[in-house]
Parts: sequence; structure tokens; C-alpha cells
Amino acid sequence: MSKVKPNTPKGTRDFSPAVMVKRNYIFDTIKAAFQKYGFLPIETPAMENTSTLMGKYGEEGDRLIFKILNSGDFTRSFKDKSGKVGEGGFTLNDDYRQLTTIISEKALRYDLTVPFARYVVQHQNDITFPFKRYQIQPVWRADRPQKGRYREFYQCDADVIGSKSLFNEIELVQLMDEVFSKLNISTTIKINNRKILSGIAEIIGEQEKIVTITVAIDKLDKIGIEGVNKELIENGINQEAIEKLQPLIKFEGTTAEKLTFLKQLLATSEVGLKGIDEVEKIISTLDNNELQSAVCELDITLARGLNYYTGAIFEVKSNQGGLDSSICGGGRYDDLTGVFGLPNTSGVGISFGADRIFDVMDALNLFPASVTTSTQVLFVSFGEPEQAYCIPLVTKLRNEGISAELYPDAGAKMKKQMAYANAKNIPYVIVVGSDEMESNLLTLKIMETGNQEKLSIEDITAKIEH
Amino acid sequence: MSKVKPNTPKGTRDFSPAVMVKRNYIFDTIKAAFQKYGFLPIETPAMENTSTLMGKYGEEGDRLIFKILNSGDFTRSFKDKSGKVGEGGFTLNDDYRQLTTIISEKALRYDLTVPFARYVVQHQNDITFPFKRYQIQPVWRADRPQKGRYREFYQCDADVIGSKSLFNEIELVQLMDEVFSKLNISTTIKINNRKILSGIAEIIGEQEKIVTITVAIDKLDKIGIEGVNKELIENGINQEAIEKLQPLIKFEGTTAEKLTFLKQLLATSEVGLKGIDEVEKIISTLDNNELQSAVCELDITLARGLNYYTGAIFEVKSNQGGLDSSICGGGRYDDLTGVFGLPNTSGVGISFGADRIFDVMDALNLFPASVTTSTQVLFVSFGEPEQAYCIPLVTKLRNEGISAELYPDAGAKMKKQMAYANAKNIPYVIVVGSDEMESNLLTLKIMETGNQEKLSIEDITAKIEH
Repeated sequence: MSKVKPNTPKGTRDFSPAVMVKRNYIFDTIKAAFQKYGFLPIETPAMENTSTLMGKYGEEGDRLIFKILNSGDFTRSFKDKSGKVGEGGFTLNDDYRQLTTIISEKALRYDLTVPFARYVVQHQNDITFPFKRYQIQPVWRADRPQKGRYREFYQCDADVIGSKSLFNEIELVQLMDEVFSKLNISTTIKINNRKILSGIAEIIGEQEKIVTITVAIDKLDKIGIEGVNKELIENGINQEAIEKLQPLIKFEGTTAEKLTFLKQLLATSEVGLKGIDEVEKIISTLDNNELQSAVCELDITLARGLNYYTGAIFEVKSNQGGLDSSICGGGRYDDLTGVFGLPNTSGVGISFGADRIFDVMDALNLFPASVTTSTQVLFVSFGEPEQAYCIPLVTKLRNEGISAELYPDAGAKMKKQMAYANAKNIPYVIVVGSDEMESNLLTLKIMETGNQEKLSIEDITAKIEH
Repeated sequence: MSKVKPNTPKGTRDFSPAVMVKRNYIFDTIKAAFQKYGFLPIETPAMENTSTLMGKYGEEGDRLIFKILNSGDFTRSFKDKSGKVGEGGFTLNDDYRQLTTIISEKALRYDLTVPFARYVVQHQNDITFPFKRYQIQPVWRADRPQKGRYREFYQCDADVIGSKSLFNEIELVQLMDEVFSKLNISTTIKINNRKILSGIAEIIGEQEKIVTITVAIDKLDKIGIEGVNKELIENGINQEAIEKLQPLIKFEGTTAEKLTFLKQLLATSEVGLKGIDEVEKIISTLDNNELQSAVCELDITLARGLNYYTGAIFEVKSNQGGLDSSICGGGRYDDLTGVFGLPNTSGVGISFGADRIFDVMDALNLFPASVTTSTQVLFVSFGEPEQAYCIPLVTKLRNEGISAELYPDAGAKMKKQMAYANAKNIPYVIVVGSDEMESNLLTLKIMETGNQEKLSIEDITAKIEH
């Protein structure tokens, strides 16, 4: 065994205890909200058959899927299939993509949505629909690593599948509000509807180019109206259509004003009016059932994931901290399971981005002070007999539900043991020397104040909040 | 997109809600015990650099590590390095193992111990030693799948690194007892010590063959004493040594009797006596600090993981259910981090096998009845106005911390809505029709008894335990 410089692979991270407890706070909050709303947990394997994943995320997505090499002598299957074995080796004229399909049959999941669709189809006979599931697991993408973008990151998804009712959309907005209110993040929940975008494309006479148009409009915040128009021209949208779009892109107003404006604009588009009606129902129900803290608004420039969303589209942004990135998003998709053989099953879901939520909370200092590492009491002793004396006392505290430790090295210097308590942010230290052993009164030191007093183990137990 | 028959890869599983809640019960119990004992959580990435993992698990282990194909055109690096590009393709005379190192630089973790060692070395300047960490994450092995053995499974590890004190061993036995007592599994915790095994090899004059000897003795349960002796002969242990071993292998008695016997047998072996002394200290301390439910005993045939254990060796078996497999194991290793450049750092740890624990608990019906899916109340409504009436009531219950749902499809038949409640094991159903809307008294149906009564939402809230 040679010495290896230890490091995590590019774009991946270790999570140390101080970060873990904060991350767990986020996961636990999301999980509690999911459960309160009646979503049930599932988990799927990290690996999926490559055929399950490929072709679901576009060409770019396919490229970013991590493939797993077949185990054993993977060149055997390669040689078998190509039939072109060279002298003691092999040759292949095709490019690496073809070679990949021969030497790799499994891949790491790229998101939780496609594995969920696969799950629903595979287990359809055991599932009672509508099926409300949540799933909190890591996903992997071979993206170029950069600040805030990792090759391994967690997604926290909640979906309802098998129900077309708009109540699901309403409930998901409430759920997003619940999570961010509990996390104390002030947010704006933006909603849009694919049908409104279809209506717009229709009335400007560019139905076929709906994706091009919405991708351009989606960039309004970043590139401004000039940039949007430039992109539209570049993508072959005619001048007349672009002019028809201007009042819409430029329109500013409340959600109610936007809806009134859209009703006039899309008066001749059946699909457009349907989309407006859906948004109106969601918004008006939410108006009658106040959200806890989030602001919910219509944003017709919102177009994320348009490739598969067919109705509502959601995106959540933090109102503070200047972090413009989306911390949650989702929408309705009418036929995600069709590709696996179960057509006409409508679903709607949202996905929380734990890493971005972490970044927002960390930047805004939103983690409660109580979210720290968990040991409450450290026993410090001065030798073997003292340590032996402490062992049943540690057990006693633990049995009371108090997280407690005994410094393991009995001979260690007081200073070293106290430094350990400090490093772990342990609030209480119990010091045991020969005096304490004789009197059965232990020295309790409160680390924050430095105060000390002599107490029985029962009094100490009562004193420590738990 | 073509239709794909949906399936998980061989040896991997989906976890459906009913199984998830049981698994989470196991994980939560283990986690709570880890925290009570002052262990802090870390997580490491699913992928490690291949160089971090290879050579740590023996030749067999290396073969079972899942390798990840380099992303992008992996043949480019291959062509660059081999320098033997064929006509429009490539050739290589070497075998697949060499090719693997060129086209794959990352692999999925095989256990949690090696990534933890890598973590400790990488972050050594930020860690206060002794470092008590826990880690609950999946690992992947390209083993041939069979009943109870999967290619993806969870490990739940707790280790103390940077302390040689035997107190750590004592505490880990207490921790194993805590976990299995809380899970209501009756267990035997077997302990042994590498130094005793070294002493035995020494006094029979076969120091060099300690691994061969212990691997054979380890099989006593399975192949009997004849089988053990046969294996010893086959591995070149001389007849005299084998005869010296017989009384030891055959010895039956209490742990105290075993220790007395060993003291005589190993009287001339310094290392052997040291091992006996360690076991004696652990056992006598545990005798003075009663375990909650486990039985702890010396088993000199216990030799698991001998390649790296240097002191204590632990293994836990369930006393019931006829499931002979180990549900927890561990030991002390004196130099795990040396290979990554941090020598002389002693550690001791244990690993809970969540899947095997699940199998034992499921077979013995040990999951508490309270471990079920989580929705407590379903609102059933007969139309759009009733549904609208229910929405604020659902919110009200949720705000009280009660997990509640509203059947999303307002027009659905009563029978269908009730079937949903049954399938999800929802204990309370609230039925809302026009009568209920008028009187503001809702019909509460208790599913277990079928009893119904009309109550205000406040009375219902009070009635439902939460």
C-alpha cells in the first residue's frame, strides 16, 4: 500500500459535523412538512439501468450522466459484440458513445423525477393513486464544478401522481410556504402556466416556436428586453410577432392586473384562457387561505423545465441575501410515465434544492442557535479510579436522555480535556477528582459563564435542560 | 423516446413507504444512540478517487469495487496514454485491469471505514482528537446478488479515532447494547482480541500463520472441529501445532473459565497475556455496569476482519429467529490512516448492518405498531364547494402538528376516497357534505371501529392524539 494524497473527487465534498447538523436541520424541516401534508417516503437505488436514464434529459443531460463500468472483465462483452478483436487487444471504429453502451450498463441517477417515474410504472399494481410520495436522496451530474454547483448534491422532491385536480397545485404552494416559513426564509413563490405560454405563442402566430420564445423570455431578468428581442430575432421569430410580444413582456402590475391584461390579450386562444383560469383558481384559493410568509405571484417569464411541464410551473426565490438563484421549483407534467409504458398519468411536483437553501441560510445567518452539535455533558476525570467512578454516572445521564461523554484517556491533562469540551461546544463539564468521589458531590462547570458548583448527580440531571 | 421495461439494476432495490418507515425506525434508533453517546455525524461523497479505495480490501475487494467511467470522451485519455491508436480506433495489448485505470478515475465507496480514514487525514488540522464520528450512508459492492445480500446497502458506523483507552471499547459495547435494547432485539455480543490470537499462534509455534489459523478457527460453527483441523493441515500447519490447539478449540465454559484457561495456556506469551488483560478489563467493567439486555461473552473463535484489527474484535448476533448472521461488528485498528500519511493513530469502531437488522426484526415481528405511515386524517368531500370548505380546515389541523390530507379529486366517489384512506392506513376520516357545511359539525369516522360522530373541528383536533 503506497501513500496516497487524500482528497475527494473534483466537485464533491465531505460534510463535517458542524455542517451536517445544519444540513440535517434543513432536511428534517422539509421532511416534517412533507409528512404533515401526507406525503410518504420512498427511496430508489443510486444506480439505474442506463436505458432508464438515457434520452430523458436531452443531449446535454445524457452527456452529464455518470456511467458505471460493468464489473469484471468488461472488455469481454466488448470483444463479443464488436467482433473486431485485434492482435491481443481490440479495435473499434465507432466513437466513445457507442463504446460506452457496450462497457457500461448502469449509471448514477441524474435527478429523482425519472427514477420516480420508473418506480411508479414498476410498482403500479401496489400503488394506490393518487400517490403522494417524497424522496430525499443525492443525485450526480458530471457538470463542470463551480461555486455553488457540485457533482453530488441532494434533491428533496414531493410529487402527487394520478390526480389532475388543481387542489394539488394549491397544496404544493402551501407546502413550499410551510417549509420556508419554518426555515425563516422570506420568499416569493412565482407561478406560471405552460398553457398561458402556449396561448401567447398561438396569438403571435408562432405556435411551433413556443420553446424558443419562452427560453428567451425566461432570460428577461438577466439580459433585459433588448437582449430578449435580439435572441428572438436570432432564432427566426418574425418582426410582427416580436412586436406583438412587447406589451406583454413590458407589462408591469399586480397579479390581478396581469390576469386582466392576459385575458384580453389571449381572448382568442382557448388554451391560453384555460391557463389563465388555472392560475386564477390557484391564486384566489390561496388568497382565501393565507400563506404563512411567502408572497405568491404570477410571472409569465417563468419557463423552467418547459420540455416536460404541461400546466403549472413553480419557482421560489429568497427575498433577501441577494442570492438570485432558485431554491425550489416544480410544475405539472402530464405524461412522465408514458415512456415506461404507463400513459395518461398526470403528476405535479416540487423539488427543494438543499444546497442552495443552505447557502441562503448560511449567508443570512438563519440557523437557530439550538442547531449545534449534540453532546450536552462531558465528564472530565483525573485518573483510572475517577474514570471508573464516572462510568455509571455517564450511563445514568444517558438513560435520562442526556447526551453525555466521558473523556476516554484517563491520564490526560485537565487542559486537554477542557479543550476537547470547548472544541465540541459542550455546554456542561463535570469534573471528578478524589474530593468528588468521597463526597459524591460533583463539580459542574457551566462553560458559557465559567461558573462552578458542587452538586449531586440527581441535581445535575435536573439542572440540565433536556 | 422508446418504451423501456422499467426495472432496478440487479442486486438493487426500491424501498416503498411501508418498508421505508420501518427502515427509518432502525436508522433513527441507531442515530439517537450515537448522539446520546457523543458521536458526531459526518458524510463523505459516494464517489472516491479510485486510488483512495484500491488496495485496501484485498484482491477480491478490488474486484468488487464499482468503477465510474470518466465523463466525456474517455477514449481520448486512453489514446493519449497508450500511444497505440489504431486506424480510426484503438488497440491495447494489456488486460482490462490496466484499461480500467485509464478510463476510470473514480469509484463508488465500498465501505465507510476507508473513506473515514481518508477524511481524518484530509481534515486532520480541523479535527479535535479523540474524534467520535458516526456515519450512516449506503455502500456499493459488485457482489453476486443473493438472498439478503445486495449491491447497494447501508452501513451505520461509529468510530473513535485518536484514543488508545480501553474505555472506548467498553463504551462501544454499551452502545451496541443500547441500540439492540431499544430495538427490542435480544443479542449476544461476542468479543475477542487479536492479541490473544497472536499469543495462540505464538505458543503453538506458528506466528507467521496467524491469519490462516484464525480463518480456520472462525469456521468452527460451520464446519466443526474435523473441518477446522482438515483446513489447518491443508494450509501447512504442522501436526504438533494442531494438537496443541485442540484443548483450546474444544474448551467450553463461561467467559471467566475461558480467561483462567487462557492465562495458563498463554503464560509464556507476552502479547497473549496483554490480550487477556484487555478482555478482562472490558468484561469486568461491564459486569460492574450492567448492560440493558445483551449478553457479552468472550469467543476466541471470533476473527472477523483480522487483516486490520489489532486489538478488540466485536460481533453481535441475534439470540432469536435462527438468523445466524452478524448484525453488528467491529474492532480496534491501530494504523488505518497510515496509508494516507497519518501514522500511529489508533481507532476503534463498530458497524451496524441495517439490512440484516431489518430482516431479524421483520422475521420476529419486532417493529412497534406505531411504526406506520404517517397521515393521521383524511378529509373526504363530495364536490367543489365542500372541498373549498375543507381547505382551511386541513390547514388548521396541520398547524396543530397533525398530519392531514384532503382527497384531491373533488368529484371522486365516496367509495374511492374511503379506499384511499384504507390503503394508506389513515386512522381518521372526516366526511364533509352540505349538512356538515351548514352546521359546522363535521362527521368524524374512526376507521378501526367504524364509529362515527359529529364534532366541531376544535373537538376533533383535541380528540386526535398527536
